[in-house]
Amino acid sequence: MVGAGQLARMTQQAAIALGVELRVLANSLDESAARVIADTRLGDYRDLAALQAFAEGCDVITFDHEHVPTGHIEALAARGVAVRPGAEALVHAQDKAVMRERLTAIGAPCPAWARVSTAEDVEGFAKEHGWPVVLKAARGGYDGRGVWVCASAGEAAGVLASGTALIAEAFVPFEREVAVLVARSPHGQGVSYPVVETVQKDGICVEVIAPAPGLDPEHAAQAQHVALKIANELGVTGLLAVEMFQLPGGRFVVNELAMRPHNSGHWTIEGARTSQFEQHLRAVLDLPLGSPAPAAPVVVMANVLGGADPDLFRRYEHVMAHDPGVKIHFYGKEVRPGRKIGHVTALGTDLAEVRARARHAAVHLATGEYV
Amino acid sequence: MVGAGQLARMTQQAAIALGVELRVLANSLDESAARVIADTRLGDYRDLAALQAFAEGCDVITFDHEHVPTGHIEALAARGVAVRPGAEALVHAQDKAVMRERLTAIGAPCPAWARVSTAEDVEGFAKEHGWPVVLKAARGGYDGRGVWVCASAGEAAGVLASGTALIAEAFVPFEREVAVLVARSPHGQGVSYPVVETVQKDGICVEVIAPAPGLDPEHAAQAQHVALKIANELGVTGLLAVEMFQLPGGRFVVNELAMRPHNSGHWTIEGARTSQFEQHLRAVLDLPLGSPAPAAPVVVMANVLGGADPDLFRRYEHVMAHDPGVKIHFYGKEVRPGRKIGHVTALGTDLAEVRARARHAAVHLATGEYV
Repeated sequence: MVGAGQLARMTQQAAIALGVELRVLANSLDESAARVIADTRLGDYRDLAALQAFAEGCDVITFDHEHVPTGHIEALAARGVAVRPGAEALVHAQDKAVMRERLTAIGAPCPAWARVSTAEDVEGFAKEHGWPVVLKAARGGYDGRGVWVCASAGEAAGVLASGTALIAEAFVPFEREVAVLVARSPHGQGVSYPVVETVQKDGICVEVIAPAPGLDPEHAAQAQHVALKIANELGVTGLLAVEMFQLPGGRFVVNELAMRPHNSGHWTIEGARTSQFEQHLRAVLDLPLGSPAPAAPVVVMANVLGGADPDLFRRYEHVMAHDPGVKIHFYGKEVRPGRKIGHVTALGTDLAEVRARARHAAVHLATGEYV
Repeated sequence: MVGAGQLARMTQQAAIALGVELRVLANSLDESAARVIADTRLGDYRDLAALQAFAEGCDVITFDHEHVPTGHIEALAARGVAVRPGAEALVHAQDKAVMRERLTAIGAPCPAWARVSTAEDVEGFAKEHGWPVVLKAARGGYDGRGVWVCASAGEAAGVLASGTALIAEAFVPFEREVAVLVARSPHGQGVSYPVVETVQKDGICVEVIAPAPGLDPEHAAQAQHVALKIANELGVTGLLAVEMFQLPGGRFVVNELAMRPHNSGHWTIEGARTSQFEQHLRAVLDLPLGSPAPAAPVVVMANVLGGADPDLFRRYEHVMAHDPGVKIHFYGKEVRPGRKIGHVTALGTDLAEVRARARHAAVHLATGEYV
């Protein structure tokens, strides 16, 4: 696995059970996954020679993030390395313009969109679809970075001035955000986890509710169908997380794609029969996929964001004592305000109670507040 | 954690989530846990200097096995190292004569027993309690090794000839074997997992059923009470597994003690809200204990024993395809006939169905047979 963040770290838990020997490529031995994986190699994922040396002796190469240059992935594949997902699939999670073109071509629901590079492009788009216009960096954005909701030509001008390759999207007056996590293996087996609701705050996911409350089963099936179709048409191998907006009336449009374990799937560690991390390993290794069935009627995951006080040991003790059933996950990362340093998961039957438990644990760990 | 077998390996999964930095003392980098733990140190647990060097910088020392000499543990404690469980508790899991003396003193139910060293001792014991007499090595036995069921003075003579320190126990005509896993933290918090049934074959545990089917709730509470009392009286810190015989009529007698994560608790990884490995870490670190509540009505764990054919990849694929819900755990060990190389866990609501699923997976992985 290229990259040694928390996704690689949690993949190690699954690898241990499966008997899969997981090697990671890290920038430093302090990184989240490097701290817990015996076979950690140091190197720069932007350096093709480092990637090639890393791949030596691995059966399959996969990713903790989507930043490896497409050309490097193609070069590895040309040398016979099994890279999953492959470059031709992964580019759809790396480049939003490529993603929108492809999704439009296969009939997946998208907001109106266009490539834009000048003020005239944006104004022309706004004339047709109205303000605000959402400008997105085609490459490199995450957690709300690289996304600008522009109310006017003046605001758009500031973004255009940066020179970043952009797309414009019509602002979607959504009711809520949901995500569908699917897995697809090289020989074409696919599974979908239940549709979940994702709650964002300042562009960062703070809470995931599985399954999405009150979702019409037909709408749920539609969303899963769209996600599985995208995985199949794009030839994804491994996980695909499809973030969607749900519109008034129930219809979905696709917002973003990720081709790796995803924050919207952390609830599966305890909340589904097969965790997303195990599923990703099974998929990229072309093993039969595991059951995505939920393990409880309601599962809520809440991210723990770094707060002002980095010493959270007493808060950690409080949360354990307060709720012996809540599951705590720490990523071994230095605490910085707003940084995702862990998550908590609560399981149960009553939505309001389970949400309150997860929220209490996450907020208290971050800030020491009692909520 | 001293020792790098599968118990340390599975403890790593829990340590990753808790953000606990787990260091292991291994004999070789090929060992089960050494393969998956970044902070692996090499050394011999029988060498006090090696133990002292290993303990440097650790907050707490605990164990993957019970073979560390009592004197070494005392020496570490004298130097201010927090060793959990401590020597005075652990000796009860190391020496069966000490264990029987103490359990008798605190009123925990035991079979009739005596220290024996001569043929006269054994014959005297048999005169009172009848044949067969069970002879047990006071130290060093496990998985049925170190236990001899002797039908006559002649059979006992052969065992006595070895010179091993022995105890004699009355043969217990039990209905079934059960185990109670409890945890106790240094400040005295205790929890008990549900009582499970353990099924042995040739002295090796092959299957664990949680909870023990058809167990009278009053009998269950009795067994849990006995286990918690032993943990408390002995000052156990960490896990204590109490193996018991259930007699016709429901009464229990204690068979063996283990003070570490235990094979009878592997079902808790998916089957309980807090796995035994997480619970052990929480207990030895004096953190609040986690909920032992079961995650499904029926959970069955079956051990995977090495078979004649060491290449089990196709069987692994079969089991995954056959039952996408069964959970597979491999220990990264070389396959040797009869060796515990992994386990499988199935969860559900119907006892017969869940047992059949676990049995199919475990037997097929071991032998390729369809059962």
